[in-house]
Amino acid sequence: MFSASDAAFMAQAIQLAALGCYTTSPNPNVGAVLVNNGIVIGTGYHKQAGGPHAEVFALREAGAAAQGATCYVTLEPCSHYGRTPPCAEALIAAGVARVVIAMQDPNPQVAGRGVAMLRAAGITVETGLLHTQARALNPGFLSRMERQRPYVQLKLAASLDGRTALANGDSKWLTGAAARADVQHYRAQSCAVLSTATTVIADNARLNLRPEQLEHSVARLENGELRLPKRVILDRNGLLDGKLAIFADGGEVLLCVSKVENSRQLPNIARQIHCPLDSNAQFDIPALLEHLAVREQINTLWVEAGATLAGTLLQLQLVDELIVYLAPKLLGNTAQPLAVLPQFQALADVPELSWTDVRMVGQDIRLTARFNAAVTA
Amino acid sequence: MFSASDAAFMAQAIQLAALGCYTTSPNPNVGAVLVNNGIVIGTGYHKQAGGPHAEVFALREAGAAAQGATCYVTLEPCSHYGRTPPCAEALIAAGVARVVIAMQDPNPQVAGRGVAMLRAAGITVETGLLHTQARALNPGFLSRMERQRPYVQLKLAASLDGRTALANGDSKWLTGAAARADVQHYRAQSCAVLSTATTVIADNARLNLRPEQLEHSVARLENGELRLPKRVILDRNGLLDGKLAIFADGGEVLLCVSKVENSRQLPNIARQIHCPLDSNAQFDIPALLEHLAVREQINTLWVEAGATLAGTLLQLQLVDELIVYLAPKLLGNTAQPLAVLPQFQALADVPELSWTDVRMVGQDIRLTARFNAAVTA
Repeated sequence: MFSASDAAFMAQAIQLAALGCYTTSPNPNVGAVLVNNGIVIGTGYHKQAGGPHAEVFALREAGAAAQGATCYVTLEPCSHYGRTPPCAEALIAAGVARVVIAMQDPNPQVAGRGVAMLRAAGITVETGLLHTQARALNPGFLSRMERQRPYVQLKLAASLDGRTALANGDSKWLTGAAARADVQHYRAQSCAVLSTATTVIADNARLNLRPEQLEHSVARLENGELRLPKRVILDRNGLLDGKLAIFADGGEVLLCVSKVENSRQLPNIARQIHCPLDSNAQFDIPALLEHLAVREQINTLWVEAGATLAGTLLQLQLVDELIVYLAPKLLGNTAQPLAVLPQFQALADVPELSWTDVRMVGQDIRLTARFNAAVTA
Repeated sequence: MFSASDAAFMAQAIQLAALGCYTTSPNPNVGAVLVNNGIVIGTGYHKQAGGPHAEVFALREAGAAAQGATCYVTLEPCSHYGRTPPCAEALIAAGVARVVIAMQDPNPQVAGRGVAMLRAAGITVETGLLHTQARALNPGFLSRMERQRPYVQLKLAASLDGRTALANGDSKWLTGAAARADVQHYRAQSCAVLSTATTVIADNARLNLRPEQLEHSVARLENGELRLPKRVILDRNGLLDGKLAIFADGGEVLLCVSKVENSRQLPNIARQIHCPLDSNAQFDIPALLEHLAVREQINTLWVEAGATLAGTLLQLQLVDELIVYLAPKLLGNTAQPLAVLPQFQALADVPELSWTDVRMVGQDIRLTARFNAAVTA
């Protein structure tokens, strides 16, 4: 059904889609390649919500040459009027003869409609080429659409013996400057950073972006293109006061509270969001994640927190991906643990993951691992 | 002084030397390449103590063509009659014109004598080519010669959160079959394995070689070529009885005791060695290591032990290399620690290492790290 050149053009569309990874959310990353007689005549990727879709950029570049062309696109073209007109209509109007689609729209309410619209206009439509690779472009968007919760990445930094800080709390600097800059790139790709009031207060943490630590190609994105991730802070006891550094700059601060206090004085950058308690009188984390996905359009949630919240998320099986920076140091048995978990009685009961990547980041090693139930599996 | 082809021939000699890594101890790994008019006419490596040296194999292969040739050898040719006649004499007798040596003999009592003997016979001798790489062939032999202690490799196996076993002791199987087979290759290259009576009893550990887990090229080494590492067990309280699996097969078992009990009934495979106590009435580990190097000719010591001995060795800065198998599991904060160390007050005080290698081994990751004071630095 698909030729080797079909696959090569779709691979190019996937590479283009990835260029939007710092800017497209809450929209998905999408890339498109227009080909006529074996020649690429137009390319495009979706850069920013509200801006043109990938197909539109490709059609603009191709002009009249789009007549009779094949369009390779990583996600089913839209069929509805949103902030932009439907791409399916634009492809029809341009006289495209064939459309190859890597994956259907994940929104069940519109899935298949773009394909149907194209076919009704007599266009040949084929789907499923490099489907897995296309899904991997959008773990966050797909998680929000398919599971109504964000794709959760838990960041940890530990010594070789799995400790995050000395007994007295000293953890500066466990990992090196390269690891901290690497974290900046993850934050910049995330819709929100999740942490706790305890962590924010202990480190007077900002959890913001530091453009000077970002690669030039990222840092030079224009104002408004580089999204500032929201900071979502569990602050049940209203511990955060307006003088903390987290309120000085960066994205919006969402304070998760069990009861919104209208009298609370907060900087303009902050907003309280209600998070219900569970039967143990703890924050109902699954409910919070659903809220973040459905109400706040959070695709990807980057968690930087202590051993307690890390353990809670792990126990609830709400972590899709672990990113661990391992420093070549030994902190010893009295130092602080990586994750608070129940006391297991057998090795068969412990959480198991699969390593997905391992590499040096400056003086440290970065390990990534996924649980088997991850959305992109 | 050296040409690119000199370096290429020495690199070949170094690769040859490494072929002996499972068999040469307590002798060093040595390789030799004989070249005449740019053509390799003979190669050799030292395979086994008591057998011919690398230069002899190369000379045998070259025959009369050695007349006027250049010999590239990774270690200074010997000048004394040991179990074999001196190689320097053999090179002179064969009419070799030039000898290029990567490193001097590390034994100060004979260093330079081989060079002097060659030069006295009118042979051009040049030294120092790929010196660092040649040293890296023999960390154990060099440690024994230069520091009178073995090169110490500490093997650890831990979960992602740095835990070696559950609170109840369950640790089977934390790492996978590939990691356990990898350990076999380290053991097979080591002169001895160090552990404690506690560990041996808890796991009824054999700490031996399992030929079925070794790569074919290693396992097929003839009987007597593949050395069985000695098992050195700290057994101060005489806890090991003869029925334990460690006495069933494998290399000799050296029981480290503070007082040799002549009345103790032990299998033939076992022998008591005296290890003095230090001022804290603990085994004097530095004295033990000196004993193992000087009296037992142990070049490399592979340590498989619990958090206490690991911590002691680390605190005493007696670990040259850490080899850590990291399983993609989380055991939690109640599980057992990797190393018992003092409670540090500042991150600046903790032991710091440098990662030297990282790779996947089956389902696990193997990390290696060295302390800055390592012998091969």
